[in-house]
Amino acid sequence: MITNALEGLRIIDLTRVLAGPYCTMILSDMGAEVIKAEVPGSGDDTRAFPPFIEGESVYFKNMNRNKKGITLNLKSEKGKAIFIDLIKQADVVTENYRPGTMEKLGLGYEILKEINPRLVYGCISGFGHYGRYSKRAGYDIVGQAMSGIMSVTGWPDGPPTRTGGPISDAMAGISLACGILAALRYRDLTGLGQKVDISLVDTLVSSMQIINQIYFATGRLPERIGNRYESTYPYDTFPTKDGETIVIGCANDKVWKILCKLMDKADLIEHPKMLTNRLRVENHAMIRPIVAEWTLTKNAQDIVDLLLNNDCPAAFIYSIKQASEDAHIAGDRGMFPEIEYPRIGKLRVTGSHFKFSETEVGPKGPSPDLGQHNNEVFKELLGYDDGQIDLLKQEGVI
Amino acid sequence: MITNALEGLRIIDLTRVLAGPYCTMILSDMGAEVIKAEVPGSGDDTRAFPPFIEGESVYFKNMNRNKKGITLNLKSEKGKAIFIDLIKQADVVTENYRPGTMEKLGLGYEILKEINPRLVYGCISGFGHYGRYSKRAGYDIVGQAMSGIMSVTGWPDGPPTRTGGPISDAMAGISLACGILAALRYRDLTGLGQKVDISLVDTLVSSMQIINQIYFATGRLPERIGNRYESTYPYDTFPTKDGETIVIGCANDKVWKILCKLMDKADLIEHPKMLTNRLRVENHAMIRPIVAEWTLTKNAQDIVDLLLNNDCPAAFIYSIKQASEDAHIAGDRGMFPEIEYPRIGKLRVTGSHFKFSETEVGPKGPSPDLGQHNNEVFKELLGYDDGQIDLLKQEGVI
Repeated sequence: MITNALEGLRIIDLTRVLAGPYCTMILSDMGAEVIKAEVPGSGDDTRAFPPFIEGESVYFKNMNRNKKGITLNLKSEKGKAIFIDLIKQADVVTENYRPGTMEKLGLGYEILKEINPRLVYGCISGFGHYGRYSKRAGYDIVGQAMSGIMSVTGWPDGPPTRTGGPISDAMAGISLACGILAALRYRDLTGLGQKVDISLVDTLVSSMQIINQIYFATGRLPERIGNRYESTYPYDTFPTKDGETIVIGCANDKVWKILCKLMDKADLIEHPKMLTNRLRVENHAMIRPIVAEWTLTKNAQDIVDLLLNNDCPAAFIYSIKQASEDAHIAGDRGMFPEIEYPRIGKLRVTGSHFKFSETEVGPKGPSPDLGQHNNEVFKELLGYDDGQIDLLKQEGVI
Repeated sequence: MITNALEGLRIIDLTRVLAGPYCTMILSDMGAEVIKAEVPGSGDDTRAFPPFIEGESVYFKNMNRNKKGITLNLKSEKGKAIFIDLIKQADVVTENYRPGTMEKLGLGYEILKEINPRLVYGCISGFGHYGRYSKRAGYDIVGQAMSGIMSVTGWPDGPPTRTGGPISDAMAGISLACGILAALRYRDLTGLGQKVDISLVDTLVSSMQIINQIYFATGRLPERIGNRYESTYPYDTFPTKDGETIVIGCANDKVWKILCKLMDKADLIEHPKMLTNRLRVENHAMIRPIVAEWTLTKNAQDIVDLLLNNDCPAAFIYSIKQASEDAHIAGDRGMFPEIEYPRIGKLRVTGSHFKFSETEVGPKGPSPDLGQHNNEVFKELLGYDDGQIDLLKQEGVI
């Protein structure tokens, strides 16, 4: 009985911090076996990142749930040999070192593919594995800065603004998961693996399709326009009587007409400057005060209820607390499951957003302690005995 | 010779506007055959969305490159029958209607899987296909609002702020592509398809892993903190002498030390309030003016060059124009290829951010005119003759 979409898929995971571990978290939530190899002694940097519970990093624990943990010193010859033995039995290897690091270790893709031609090699870096900036360190903030997304986030009179979540890392992580699965289809067709090279900057550039197209097609440079959108109006945030801010999303004529009637301004439906979405975008500065004047007469809950009851898209702007307590998001969609961890007990985490009709998805168990699965992996996969494992530990190889 | 990772994969695509078409664009860039079915007469809403060249929507043209276009009226009995005949020969069907729409048409997943048990059914909606809000319309702005991401984007003294790109739509589109490929692996194992249900809200909730974890682990509610990050400092934007804003990303002690020396403030390396990343995050308000005082003495180009030459992550905040002209992004990584379109000629678009070592990826041809591939698809796949096709046109079925 197959209960997980990625059952039988084995990934040797060298990734650290966020983008890479998020990728392998997604794949392990879908049932892949992820063997995370960490530096002996210290492990993934995020084991020392806040927030902590009882001195243990919850950043690490959430991001590395489900995974098996081994330690491996890739700078030692014995460590390299063990890594190569693992690669022989793996479907996928993942890493998010700075490009060139694996080559310096003598473990670059060109070498690994000779050892296992079926291997899919997935990597994430700031700028990708080729190109003139490839050797530069790249972080989430660099992806946000150089993709152009910061230049269009924020307010016309304010500075370029980052997105409040690590959106380069998250989107690159999902993209690598997607790219690896595509490469596995190519392997099914040909018997051959390949390298999948995802860059933080490329990824956010891709997310900007429509914004880029405005510049390419018209020469007009998109800039910061606050909470309205380039292509539709009124599709924006508005203030309410009780000092909240809510969202109204009139993406087409039908919904605009509903809004006009609810505002008791049915005359606007025939207004020559508001007849079509295109005209409403052009005349947003005229429309905004009309809608805001109305929203300021009501409390947030009343407006959102009224709009939703009349099939006009509207929403509260949730805090993290509100999102995590919402009956649909947390309840029905199960986006915040609990995992039982050794020592610290139950921990609430963020679940999988992939919902499959036939297969399970989501957290299956805690993250590993450093080297927790050394014995299991080295014995079962590589056939080592206790004496050999003890020696490797003494030598600092694992 | 297999040149595309997804060669041989056939997708019947009912998606419209952005999130769904972005998903099938990604899959078609990887070589899947995407047959986009549109409403006869009008087609995808975005055929009427700006920007335009010669009266034709570039929004549509970019997002639907590579795809074959057919017209199909799913409200007519003949249209439904044709759709079912197509489903029999498809690997995947995709849709982003409001949940319940396919069921109302008599074409819900439960019916389609009886017709083709191997079918993977991929859908994107605002809130997902189950749960109490599932019937609500959901748009990008609603995903941004209800995931909590807007509550942490922007400035401490400013309003909740949306991300300048359609980030819910983009991340959900990639997620559906990833989910479909995972479901195909399950099909390879079992012979059975399944439904993949992606919601805009769930997707952005997932992107907030670390931010959510701060609240779950400590009870502290993450709020808007401008351009700095919760977990590392100085990793922020800073002003320059020539009025620009640049990014400096000191994600670890090593880079912090480099920055201190470049600022000619080596004494800070031993400062008891700045010794570790954790301390630097706590004392960010003390560190920021020190770094800003230094950055204000130099022009942006000089600082960025100096930092990069000393292996300290730094970046310009690019406009869309600057990103699109960058020698690495546009040149080496090929992120802005041109496609030759009928009537309007060459159009620059945003390319694929998936880079494979062995298979081609990216735009392969223009988007279809409305119904352009009716003859090809209905003849070759379904065996209709010219007379039957003409009749279907007259009857408004296609």
